[in-house]
Amino acid sequence: LAQRVSRFGTTVFSEFSALALKHQAVNLGQGFPDFDGPDAVKEAAWKAIQGGVNQYAPGMGAKDLRNAIAEHAQRFYNHAVDPDTMVTVTSGATEAILDVILGLVDPGDEVVAFEPFYDSYDANIAFVGATPRFVPLRPPDAEHTTWWFDRDEVRAAFGPKTRLLILNSPHNPTGKVFTREELEFLGNLCAEHDVKVLADEVYEHIVFAPAKHIRAATVPVLADRTVTVSSAGKSFSLTGWKVGWIIAPPPLRDAVQRAHQFVTFATASPFQAAMAVALRLPDSYFQELTALYTSKRERLLTGLREAGLQAFSPEGSYFILADIAGYGFADDVAFCRHLVTEVGVAGIPPSVFYGPEHRHLGQRFARFAFCKTEGVLDEAVRRLREKL
Amino acid sequence: LAQRVSRFGTTVFSEFSALALKHQAVNLGQGFPDFDGPDAVKEAAWKAIQGGVNQYAPGMGAKDLRNAIAEHAQRFYNHAVDPDTMVTVTSGATEAILDVILGLVDPGDEVVAFEPFYDSYDANIAFVGATPRFVPLRPPDAEHTTWWFDRDEVRAAFGPKTRLLILNSPHNPTGKVFTREELEFLGNLCAEHDVKVLADEVYEHIVFAPAKHIRAATVPVLADRTVTVSSAGKSFSLTGWKVGWIIAPPPLRDAVQRAHQFVTFATASPFQAAMAVALRLPDSYFQELTALYTSKRERLLTGLREAGLQAFSPEGSYFILADIAGYGFADDVAFCRHLVTEVGVAGIPPSVFYGPEHRHLGQRFARFAFCKTEGVLDEAVRRLREKL
Ligand SMILES: CSCCC(=O)C(=O)O
Ligand SMILES: CSCCC(=O)C(=O)O
Repeated sequence: LAQRVSRFGTTVFSEFSALALKHQAVNLGQGFPDFDGPDAVKEAAWKAIQGGVNQYAPGMGAKDLRNAIAEHAQRFYNHAVDPDTMVTVTSGATEAILDVILGLVDPGDEVVAFEPFYDSYDANIAFVGATPRFVPLRPPDAEHTTWWFDRDEVRAAFGPKTRLLILNSPHNPTGKVFTREELEFLGNLCAEHDVKVLADEVYEHIVFAPAKHIRAATVPVLADRTVTVSSAGKSFSLTGWKVGWIIAPPPLRDAVQRAHQFVTFATASPFQAAMAVALRLPDSYFQELTALYTSKRERLLTGLREAGLQAFSPEGSYFILADIAGYGFADDVAFCRHLVTEVGVAGIPPSVFYGPEHRHLGQRFARFAFCKTEGVLDEAVRRLREKL
Repeated sequence: LAQRVSRFGTTVFSEFSALALKHQAVNLGQGFPDFDGPDAVKEAAWKAIQGGVNQYAPGMGAKDLRNAIAEHAQRFYNHAVDPDTMVTVTSGATEAILDVILGLVDPGDEVVAFEPFYDSYDANIAFVGATPRFVPLRPPDAEHTTWWFDRDEVRAAFGPKTRLLILNSPHNPTGKVFTREELEFLGNLCAEHDVKVLADEVYEHIVFAPAKHIRAATVPVLADRTVTVSSAGKSFSLTGWKVGWIIAPPPLRDAVQRAHQFVTFATASPFQAAMAVALRLPDSYFQELTALYTSKRERLLTGLREAGLQAFSPEGSYFILADIAGYGFADDVAFCRHLVTEVGVAGIPPSVFYGPEHRHLGQRFARFAFCKTEGVLDEAVRRLREKL
């Protein structure tokens, strides 16, 4: 066992997916839809398979998909992307994140990220021998209607060794959507310290009005320094296809591309062809997706509250955090274990998305995914009302 | 740009694929078939897509594919594999190799590998801050009918810091198939120095009688210390699907699985379902594949020799190395550039698969892939005969 992996056990997603299965729990744990993406996209994959698109794609990604990624960026964000010098296609956003960290961060560098974080950030930072500096997001309170951060804490996290800021918006698991003003504050700090930004925007199409997704790379102070990561999984309800991408200014794209070629080299060709179709779906597709998730969010939020849980309404993503402090469990892991074994509902304990210093802050929450059909959401609520 | 990637430009595969396209050269460069895999496998992928197998697979791989991998190992090599504790499915063999190196090698460790090597080995060793120790394979000569290695050179490469030996058999690009006796010699050396082995066996089904593929993990002295990597690409002529796997004793599997979960997390679900079908194809499928490549090997070998090239007959893989020393070019890169631009045939210059110390040894060869339809092989030969 190499040192770098000895600290990391099985991901919480694998652990709770297995637990859910074992106890036949309603699974609101790992964030995958229990419904599928558009037929047109699935048929495009079959057409590619039948049409002989079955050998290595170019390492940077198929030309047509790179074009579609650029068109999509233009259409939704006015983000000008050159498909030939600014895009790399990856085997999901998880690979994309590793490519960025391998390509941009040296041993001994520091990486700033917000807590709670998607757990691969922490592991990938360790993989390259860098040090994470975590800043906790704080829950809504009397003065804040959404999750927020203390600007002094962020400032204090930056220093001469800071190389990268990881910014996840819409944010998993809090559902926070960073405002333009927040992005500008962070961008100025990055400019001041000559820091690059990894903007993980995989939930870009799951945002609830009045919140609005802002592509970090379109904020002027961030434009030159931002590497955008996104993927097909959440926007097209096809998490198992594992197609992601990186958009970056040419010099940064060059760095991540160099890493990518020795991580997976290339991504499944037929799904690249299909994703080009997906990204070109009409606006109505994306509007319907938002409408669908708006309704699911409402349904689960109402249900959780009826079951007595204090649940925060997310501005984006398909996750809801609920405050579980009042239930008398030692921590969120104990609560979630109880939930899956005794109540028959699986959630995710978010304390695993914190570093050791702030872990306690996560221990009073549980995360529930609402990317599920109505019957499943209703059954989860029924069980919670009855047995929690 | 992080230090670790600054040394690595674009892979030679991307470079020569692009050049081939630009000059409309017959492409015998990167190793992808210009024909497709079995219809039954393609239809299995479509069935999975239609049947809703479109969300995250388990991180270690779909149960049915893990079972099929174990059955295949038993059927062909009497290799006893527990599908639940010894298998991890990856997004191709390239990811698998990175997972193994991330999971097993610490900064400052040394990794022994033979030259020429698949270029991601060198890059991945650099990614983790380890040091490669390369031992060159020597071409056939008066005393050796196949590529061979000097045992003293191998012994000298092992030392107190050696952590891993990378063994690629059948070997790309020399076509060498390591004998049982060679594997035993290497295994004893590894046992003596407590070294683990990464056995990259992606060409396991492309071996020409009388050579016989021996799964390194079935050699007793290697059994406990060997991590086997293989993939779907070469055995099923579907290089673009990017499904690979790792087989290892449980403690080693645990180490690579920990890395894998933070590299890509999971691999495309529909293709996992299809690969389970592929690995269970009857023996006749694999026999026909061997027959097909035996005939293609003969065809290109004869053609290259008719064109005046001194070509070595490979025991395995779908590559032929030819000696180009007599053509008066500065090196193999110059030769291959000339070939693609003036002759209209793309090959790969193998010197890029050597470290700096032995690079000159690779400069007298060029690599040609014969995983191509007969018309393409014949056209390449026609051009070589006419213009070389
Ligand atoms: C590989 S799990 C990806 C993220 C997600 O789906 C989750 O947070 O549940
Ligand atoms: C990603 S290229 C994989 C290996 C191969 O096909 C080659 O050596 O040409």
